[in-house]
This record gives sequence, structure tokens and C-alpha cells, in this order.
Amino acid sequence: MLVVMKQSASDDEIGQVVETIEAMGYDARPIPGKQRTAVGLIGNDGRVDSARLEGLQGVLEVIVVSHPYKQVSREWKAEDTVVTLPNGTRIGGREIAIMAGPCAVESEEQIVGVARTLRRMGATILRGGAFKPRTSPYSFQGLGEEGLVLLARAREASGLAVVTEALDPEGVELVARYADIIQIGARNMQNYPLLRRAGQSEKPVLLKRGMSATIKELLLAAEYLLAEGNEQVILCERGVRSFDTHTRNLLDLTAIPVVKSLSHLPIIADPSHGTGIRTKVTPMARAAVAAGADGLMVEVHPDPEMALSDGAQSLFPEQFQELMDQIRVISRALDRELVPGLPEPAPMGV
Amino acid sequence: MLVVMKQSASDDEIGQVVETIEAMGYDARPIPGKQRTAVGLIGNDGRVDSARLEGLQGVLEVIVVSHPYKQVSREWKAEDTVVTLPNGTRIGGREIAIMAGPCAVESEEQIVGVARTLRRMGATILRGGAFKPRTSPYSFQGLGEEGLVLLARAREASGLAVVTEALDPEGVELVARYADIIQIGARNMQNYPLLRRAGQSEKPVLLKRGMSATIKELLLAAEYLLAEGNEQVILCERGVRSFDTHTRNLLDLTAIPVVKSLSHLPIIADPSHGTGIRTKVTPMARAAVAAGADGLMVEVHPDPEMALSDGAQSLFPEQFQELMDQIRVISRALDRELVPGLPEPAPMGV
Amino acid sequence: MLVVMKQSASDDEIGQVVETIEAMGYDARPIPGKQRTAVGLIGNDGRVDSARLEGLQGVLEVIVVSHPYKQVSREWKAEDTVVTLPNGTRIGGREIAIMAGPCAVESEEQIVGVARTLRRMGATILRGGAFKPRTSPYSFQGLGEEGLVLLARAREASGLAVVTEALDPEGVELVARYADIIQIGARNMQNYPLLRRAGQSEKPVLLKRGMSATIKELLLAAEYLLAEGNEQVILCERGVRSFDTHTRNLLDLTAIPVVKSLSHLPIIADPSHGTGIRTKVTPMARAAVAAGADGLMVEVHPDPEMALSDGAQSLFPEQFQELMDQIRVISRALDRELVPGLPEPAPMGV
Amino acid sequence: MLVVMKQSASDDEIGQVVETIEAMGYDARPIPGKQRTAVGLIGNDGRVDSARLEGLQGVLEVIVVSHPYKQVSREWKAEDTVVTLPNGTRIGGREIAIMAGPCAVESEEQIVGVARTLRRMGATILRGGAFKPRTSPYSFQGLGEEGLVLLARAREASGLAVVTEALDPEGVELVARYADIIQIGARNMQNYPLLRRAGQSEKPVLLKRGMSATIKELLLAAEYLLAEGNEQVILCERGVRSFDTHTRNLLDLTAIPVVKSLSHLPIIADPSHGTGIRTKVTPMARAAVAAGADGLMVEVHPDPEMALSDGAQSLFPEQFQELMDQIRVISRALDRELVPGLPEPAPMGV
Repeated sequence: MLVVMKQSASDDEIGQVVETIEAMGYDARPIPGKQRTAVGLIGNDGRVDSARLEGLQGVLEVIVVSHPYKQVSREWKAEDTVVTLPNGTRIGGREIAIMAGPCAVESEEQIVGVARTLRRMGATILRGGAFKPRTSPYSFQGLGEEGLVLLARAREASGLAVVTEALDPEGVELVARYADIIQIGARNMQNYPLLRRAGQSEKPVLLKRGMSATIKELLLAAEYLLAEGNEQVILCERGVRSFDTHTRNLLDLTAIPVVKSLSHLPIIADPSHGTGIRTKVTPMARAAVAAGADGLMVEVHPDPEMALSDGAQSLFPEQFQELMDQIRVISRALDRELVPGLPEPAPMGV
Repeated sequence: MLVVMKQSASDDEIGQVVETIEAMGYDARPIPGKQRTAVGLIGNDGRVDSARLEGLQGVLEVIVVSHPYKQVSREWKAEDTVVTLPNGTRIGGREIAIMAGPCAVESEEQIVGVARTLRRMGATILRGGAFKPRTSPYSFQGLGEEGLVLLARAREASGLAVVTEALDPEGVELVARYADIIQIGARNMQNYPLLRRAGQSEKPVLLKRGMSATIKELLLAAEYLLAEGNEQVILCERGVRSFDTHTRNLLDLTAIPVVKSLSHLPIIADPSHGTGIRTKVTPMARAAVAAGADGLMVEVHPDPEMALSDGAQSLFPEQFQELMDQIRVISRALDRELVPGLPEPAPMGV
Repeated sequence: MLVVMKQSASDDEIGQVVETIEAMGYDARPIPGKQRTAVGLIGNDGRVDSARLEGLQGVLEVIVVSHPYKQVSREWKAEDTVVTLPNGTRIGGREIAIMAGPCAVESEEQIVGVARTLRRMGATILRGGAFKPRTSPYSFQGLGEEGLVLLARAREASGLAVVTEALDPEGVELVARYADIIQIGARNMQNYPLLRRAGQSEKPVLLKRGMSATIKELLLAAEYLLAEGNEQVILCERGVRSFDTHTRNLLDLTAIPVVKSLSHLPIIADPSHGTGIRTKVTPMARAAVAAGADGLMVEVHPDPEMALSDGAQSLFPEQFQELMDQIRVISRALDRELVPGLPEPAPMGV
Repeated sequence: MLVVMKQSASDDEIGQVVETIEAMGYDARPIPGKQRTAVGLIGNDGRVDSARLEGLQGVLEVIVVSHPYKQVSREWKAEDTVVTLPNGTRIGGREIAIMAGPCAVESEEQIVGVARTLRRMGATILRGGAFKPRTSPYSFQGLGEEGLVLLARAREASGLAVVTEALDPEGVELVARYADIIQIGARNMQNYPLLRRAGQSEKPVLLKRGMSATIKELLLAAEYLLAEGNEQVILCERGVRSFDTHTRNLLDLTAIPVVKSLSHLPIIADPSHGTGIRTKVTPMARAAVAAGADGLMVEVHPDPEMALSDGAQSLFPEQFQELMDQIRVISRALDRELVPGLPEPAPMGV
């Protein structure tokens, strides 16, 4: 940490900064410059609160040099984390994992049907919301536990692993009982009681970036999960707030290489929420793979125009098929490949 | 709702939009224009999901005309909502209410001492965090229930009402037992299970705007509270995300007159989190009152340089005194006045 | 300047940074920390380009400690700059200066009439566009030089000083011939040839903040003016881009106290462009004064509904009168006062 | 255009809106809804100023249905515009065009050397700044006309076409004398006198998106060029302002498919300015091609660490070679291919 003094700072003011740092239990090292003096705080273990120094007389600004996250950082662990699911899908290695499915689970017919279609087209993970966080209290809020039951049936019928969202600490346990990956949604990225409970779960966690979260905040939210002992964490870029209204969000694909250099955790992209418009999903899904994403989460609905939520951003199954063909080519440019498809499962009940 | 067609849209495509609207149970009214046709959806009760229409062939965009919030709107209730606290403070009427106190409760001495000082200076509501949502899992997270006990003692000693934050649904009940106002923090503005539980409480709720929430989203989050039956809701502008790093957030004071024209709910401002810098708190507190805020929430610490969190944005008590003097003058320009100060309470234990 | 090394940086990489700094003609001082090493660059005169260091192996980031602006900074000149106009108006001292008038000059009757009204109500500076930068090439682009002639007549008739915008380097000379202050609009804040020409003029310059300019960029744009020798510079906050569509821009009033602590230059606010909505102009004008603005620029039109541009954000004259009354009260809270009103000028032609 | 009335709007207020629309010369059509009435303005030719209607009593908001740009829109011209350069490069068709080179022209050796290297690696257009817009007046501002002369020599030596920036109206003519494409930089996207002059030129224009320009504003800026008669316009996404400081800008790749659906003009991406960090340029260049960009503009410097500007974002030549290999593969996934490479030109002086 570096405490930058004003040009007009007196020796007394500099002395006061040094004393304060020492009173906090760290070493202080003044660094005289041509225009101004700075005081280095040596020994920062990532827990120093800069506020106390910022408020001192003569201080221009406090610059944090050490990064506040630890276990998520590549400096903590150099090699890539790879999350492995029961059906063999690996997320974070050389392979690119595809999660697909409808925004919300609506019926057994819908979810089992789409899961079988997706398996045939090469996806290995099924997405589908049972608990839906909706901006308006009057919108469809999901089927709840019944939705979880239907997701489990779709897994049995298709072999796909299941990822679905938990909205509150109690929900984590419920979701963990049915799903292979617990999703923490963008609105809950800084819901710390929820993160703590998910960090205590033994299931992998998919953590979506908040609507205006910096990459540092995303990594610190993941740090909550690792600090509780859960290292199976997958990050997800899904678009941030912007001033342009042509798309629902602004998909920040640069976050992918940035995260991969700062952290060992895998990161995927969600171009469906990231754009909010069906015709933009395919180009941005391709772009995410080209940018180095470890996977995609894409909304696919057997009949988007009848969807109970987010229909306008869901692909038709045939569009998803075309996307799979395109990203298979693109992944070669990065010397990667898609997660191998799953075999047809044995008929149910046998 | 208005479905705007592309110039190139065929009669068939327009017909398909009309049919879809009718299948959804509403009336469709095509409006031919010079450049393009639009189709009005008549009878929207605020629950129409535009997604299904956006996905249809030939559709350029869907424009939502009716507003999705109901009970929070001025069209629902024209007169201002006034929230009244047990100590007589009214929020939302002609008077301007002042909430002040440290970021976090640290000790009995600290919180009782500052409460007495603040009462003397004219505040009538004490703020102080017992449960602190912190970006890093390694930062001080608050005293928990012990903090709530100390807040109650400070109320007894000073007469100030107490506002403090709840972080999860279970916490709502606990906080409601000790506090006069339950605070929902910016990070939890779209934590719907938490909002629902707070909506079921009988205590007033202070709802802070999320870091990148639109005003519409803020009002929809408040709608969750009213939809559960709690009409004692106070909104709070506390700064939004911006590209400039000179201040922690960008305090959006225009939100105050905008909210007051759209909604009957009171709205206050938090210039401490809204700027993050002590020297900017006083000017922005003055500006908030001049913009029409129904109150302020200001961090004041007896010894900011020793604060366990957010010290750099806390006012010294004498700075708070000066601020009170200034806003007393400013409120006259709007034909308003500060909430009258409280009498000294009877000595404790008597 | 501080070059922060990765934890994994080798001694060779640190040595390479030291060598590069020395090759650039500066002193290098390695600062070992607990987690990582940083290398201080001593002697930065504000002209060091960090790019060359950022690209070196083992470098995590480069932190700029010295500020790149010079003559605009308070460290360069401690006392406030006060700009004085021919009619005696002072901008930047204890007094608060009011600029008002229509968005665009439309006719002699309009501009002379409104100037007289505004003088009577207490304004001392007339605004009005002769050259209008419009987002669409098909919108009204202003009367051009004829507009300047009409502004000069309005000055003669009312005694008000005149501020109007120049759009290109040639326009600067033309505008300077007629106006008392040359305005550089938000879209041109980084139009360097225009800034240079305005910096060579002997007229004061009003520099508006760009739509997404940081405060640092605003100050650096002003530095272009001072570097050419023009020290009569007035800054103007007029709202920045945001994700919320309720207002045209997000008026960043915190910029006012931030600029006043970093720079000696006066800063005013434009709540008309800053909000874009008539009913929000008055509250935000009050708030700007309360935040410490040295003046206001407000659109007032004798008949806003017939205005050729920006009518919806123009105040009616009677609304302007009420605003003047309110800010007169508010200025007292800051121990300031409005610029004294002007006497009625002698009848024209006498 | 649709004028949405408040629920409380009286018949008189609705009548006033109808009258105003008719006084403006258009047809008004009231559309009663379940919650509120809206009034459609029929016959909008794209020149209606909504401000006059927004200010009327009882009006909630005005929604613009027709788009204000004309000649740039796909509704005006359905087929893709293809810009063809003297050396045969086509931009906007099936082929992907690569512009590469240093940020600034520094010397004959530098620019001729890099041009030859780039030709060998497959680029067909050389970029390099002669006039540099710099945030600080104290930074290197380019070689001026001498830089243009050197660019012309590099073209002669390599066969590459040349693109370089003009900063003001006079500069347009000068740049047009030497370059094959006139670049309008991000800071000047709304510099209308500059756009007009470039629109009168017979050279193709590369128009970069402003730092916080919406896509609509970008298209309207291009409309200025087409309105002056220049249809050879290439748009360029180069990143927008964001709250995250990990990258210099936030590269908005979704703008590419959005522009391609709204307009017939070609659009390329500049991942160098769009990220500002060398290690992020290659992934984002790949992503841009995958998103459907018609080309790339990439900074390549023979010795980035010695560059006079923007060295930290310039690729080493060998990195550029690797990028070319990767995008050749990616373009196949979209059924596209790179512009064919140029033959070695005859030795100079022969």
C-alpha cells in the first residue's frame, strides 16, 4: 500500500502517516519524489483498511498495491482449476463445456424433451430455472421444488448434468440435493450469506458476475466460496450495465482473458442474458469461444415464442445446432475442442 | 405496449403479431405510419411479457408503455406516504429527517456516546451496522446480534430511533426485534427472498438503491415490499457505478425529483457512501436537501481515524454540527424544516 | 510512478525494469514488500509514458502517482482564479454567477426580449446558441453569424454579457468578435485544434465536460487552454452518460467539490442539459449551488413549447424567477451571494 | 412517434397534444389503452423534435418510433456496402480486411520496415498516426505532414493502402492527399464540421465510435458523411467507457451484429484501443472476427517497448503473425476468408 502525500504536505503530516502505519502494526517507508513524497506500507497481508490512512491530513490518495483476493488468484495457485462433473464433463481444461436449456423449467414434457434434443446436438449440461429471480413481483417466479424434480428426471432421461439457481441460503441445500452445479445469479453475486452457504456445499458453484461488478469484485465474491472450503468454482460473464439500449446488457468478453490471467478458476460466458436478443446470441457465443471462454451457457427453448420467460433471447434448437458446428471450428484456432458428446442413455425404467 | 414493425414487414408478419396478441388474451390495434406500421396491444395489465412478441418475424422492437410497478406509483396513490417512528420522527412530509452514526457498531462506549452527541446536534435517528456486508471475506463483518443489543442501549440512552441492516431472511426477524427501521443494503436490492421477508415485517423498511439499478428497478424492488403488505417504505439514493474513480460512487441526486414525481414514497440520500470521501460529504448532503430529499443518512464517528470500517467517509462530530446549521438554512428555500430535535431523555436506570 | 511487479517476478525482470527506468533518464528505487516488489520511478516530471514499462516482463501494473496536469492544479496555484467580464460579473469568487437564455438564438425579438426579462430577474450573462452541434444532420443547426449579431444586439439592449459556442478553430475568431465568453461544448471537449485556438484567444473560455469524460480528462482539456496562455477558464459540469433513461444525462454534482479541491479554476453547472427535463432543472440548479458551484447556466425560453431546439428542458421565465429567489436563500448557507443584478441600460440609440 | 399520457391526463390535455401535433403539420391519432391514452403522430419524416411535445401538460413520455437516421440504414439500402481500395482490398463483403501498424509514425525506417513486415504477414492496409490527439498537451503529438509523407513512402515500398487520422477540417484535405482512408477518431465522432468536410472528400472514411456513443449516435454521425455525398464509410468499434479499470475501455463486440442488422455499412474492430493491453489484443481480435467484424485495426510495432505512444498495447510482429493464423481458421466458421495478401512490390526506384 502506498500513501501518496500532497505536494504541500508538511514533515509533521508525513510523520503522522508513518506513526499511524506503525501503530497499525506494519512498517512504513517514506519515498521522496521530485514532486511529492509517498509512504509505503510494508507487510500488508491484504487486510489493511486504507480508510484510516485516507483520512489523515496531507494525504492525497492511498493506492492499494497488494490485491485483496488470495485463494482465487493465480499467484496462489498457478495451474488451472478443472471442475469435473459426474457425467465426465470437465470445465476449465482444454475442453469447452456447453450448458444449454430453457430459461425456466415449465413442464416435464418441455424439459425432458429439450434435454434429449440438446444431448443429441452435443451439449453435456442442462440449464433450467426452478427458482426465478424476477424484477417484478408479478412475473412468473418458477415452479420451485417441482422444477428441481423435473430437472432430475431430465438428467436421468438424457445423461446431461444439471445446473440451476439457488436464491437464498436455505435454497442451497435443496438445490444441491437435485443439481450437479449450484448457480448463484448476477443479482446475488454479493449476497454473502448465500455465498457462504454455497461455499459449504460439496457441489460445484457457478458464480455469475453482478450487473455492475468489477472483475475484482467478482473475484472477491468467489473468494467467499473458496474461503469456506469450496474450490469447485466456475465464473460466468453475462454482461454488464451500459448506456446503450440496443442490447439488454453489454457482454464484456475482455473479462475472459483478464480473469484467466488473474485467476486459476474457469470462466464461461452467457451470451443469452449478455445480449437479450436471439439474433445476437450466436455471434456473441462464437466470440466468447474465440476470446478463450471455457464454456458457454446458452438458452435454448423448443418453442421460444411460447416460453414463460426470456423467450426472445432463446435459440431455436436448429440454431443451437448451427452454433455447435461453428464453435467446433473456432475452438480449433485456439487448439481446443468441445467436451465430447454423451452416449444415448439406456431407456428409462430399465 | 407497442410492437414496432420493420419497414420491410409483410402483411403476413403484421397479421402474425395481431394473432399472437389475441392469443395472449389482449386486443391488437394496427397503427399504420408513414414509414412503418406499429401494432398497439390494448388492455395490458402490467403482466405482459414482451419477449414473445420481440421474437416474431418482422418485429423491429417492442416498446412498453404501461409501467410495470403499481402500488409504489403516484398514479396508484397521489398523496405522499409519511412514515412515522416511535420517537415521533416523520419521514416523507414537510420535515427533513436526519439519520446519523458510525458505519459499524464497535462498542457500547462508542455507540452510546455518539448517539448522545448526535441527539444534542439535532439528529433523531441513529444508524450503525451490526451485520456488515463486506466485499472481502477477510474484512471486519460486524458484531452481529451483540451490535443490535448495543444499538438498543444507545436508543434508550439518547431517544434516537435506530436503523440497521438485515442481510438475509432470518436476519429480518432478528433486526426487527431491536431496530425501528430495517435497512436493505444496495447489494441486496434485488435479493427477493429478503425483500419478501421484510415486506412481511411490521417495521418500516429503508431500501437502498443498487449500485447500478435503474430508478425503475428500485421502484420494482419496493413493489416487492408493498406487495407483501408493508407500505412503510423509505427509498435511499446512495450513488451508482461510474467510470470516474475520484469518488467511490456517483451520487445521482436527480433520482430524488424523479422518484418523487413517479412515486408517493419518501426518498432520502446517503452522501457518505455516495461519495466515499469525508470532504465531499457535506457539500453533497447540502445538495441532496436542496434537490428535495426527505432526509439524509450520514456517517459520523467520534474518532474516524480509528474506525473499524469506512472511517475515511465519516464526519467528525463538529463537521456534522456545521452541516446541520447549513441544511437548516437550505431547507427554508424549499419551505421545509428539519425534524424537531429530541429532548434529553431521563437518566438511564431511573 | 510505481511499477508493481508480479509475485512471481524474477530478479532479472526487476533488474530489467530498473534498467529501463534509468535508460529513460529517471532514477529507479526498488521497494521490496511482503508479497511483491515495486519499483519507484523518481523524478517524474509528468511526461513519463507508462506504456513502455507496462509492457515489460514480470510487471503486474504501473501506478501513476504524479498528476499529469500542471497549470490547472491547485498545487500550481493555490488561490481561486476569478474571471471578470466587461459588465463586472465575477466568476470564481464569493459570488455566484447566473447565465441564462434560450438554447438557440431564433430571432431578434426572441433574444432581445428574453435578455431584458432575464436582466430584470437578476441574471448577468446571456446564453444562446448561434452554431448548434446537433446529433442529426437533419436538425436545425443554428442561425450562424446572424445569430452572433443578434446576441450582440441583445447585449446592447440588456447589459448582459454574452456566452456562445464555437464549433471549429475558424469559428473561435468569429465568436470572439461578438461574445464575452467562448463556449466549448461537451462534444468538443477533446477537440484539440479547437482548444488550442481558444487558448490563443483573449476571451474567457467556458469548457463543458465531455459526455463521458473523467474529471482528470476535463482538467487535462483545460490544461490545453492554459498551456496556450489563456488563464480565464471556467469549467462546466453538464451531466455524464448513464444507464438510466429517466434523464438525458446524469448530472454529477460531486464533480464540483472534487474540481474545487484539485484546481483553482471556477466551475459552474448546467442543469438544463444535465437533466433534459424542465421539472428537474429547478431542483438540480438548487442542488448545484448547495454543492458549491460558482454559477449556473440555465435554459430559459419565453415560449418553450415553440422553441426550435431543446424546448422541453427550458424554464418558463416565471419558473426562472422562482429559482433565483430560492438560490438566493441557499447561497447564504454557504456564506455566498448572487452576483449583483445589472441596472437598466440606457435606451438603445441614445 | 408516440406521446404517452399520464393516467390522470384530462381530455383537455389530450386535446392539446392533438392540436399541437396538427399545428406541427402531422396527423394525430389517439389510442385509448386500459391504463392510459397514447397519441400517435403519423407522418413523421424523421425531423420531428419531440421536445415540444414532452413539455406539454399531462404528457408522461414521448417515444420515438421512427429512426432518425436514413441513408445509413438497411431499410434505405438492403445490400451491404463494399468499400474498395486502390490496392484491391474490399471492406464489407465476404472478405475480412486487416489494417495494422504502429500507433504513431516515428521515422522512415520504422514505418517502411513495419509495412514490409506486415505485407509479408498478410495485412493489406497500413495504419499509423501523423496527427495524434493526446489527452495531455505535453505528450508527443505526432510528426504532422512529415508523417504523411513517410506513410506514402511506406505504401510505395509495400503496396499496403494507408489509413491515418485527420483532426480538423483543414487536415482533411491534407490527409486525403496522402492517404487511402481518412480516419475520424473517437474523440471527434461528433465534431460536425470535421464530419462535413470528410463527407465532401472523395476518399473513404473510417469513423470510430465515440467513447460513450450509443450505436444510434454512431449511425447518426455516419449520416453526416452520407448526407454530404460520401458513401464510402467504414465504422469501427473501439471500446466504450466502463467502470472497470482492468482494461482501458470495454470493447463492445455486440455492436458488430447490432450495426450489421441496422445498417448496410461495414464495421471493423480495433482491439488495441479497445483493450489497451497487449495480452488482451489477440483474444479480442479473434473474438471480433468471430462476432462478424468485416475487418480489424491492430497496432503492431517492431519494438513496442521503445514506442513513442501506446507501446503497451502494440503487438510484436511475431504475435501478429500468430493472430493472422488464428483468424484464418475462425473466418472459415463464418464461411468467410481474409482479404488475399499482396504480392511483393517492385523494388523502389525501379
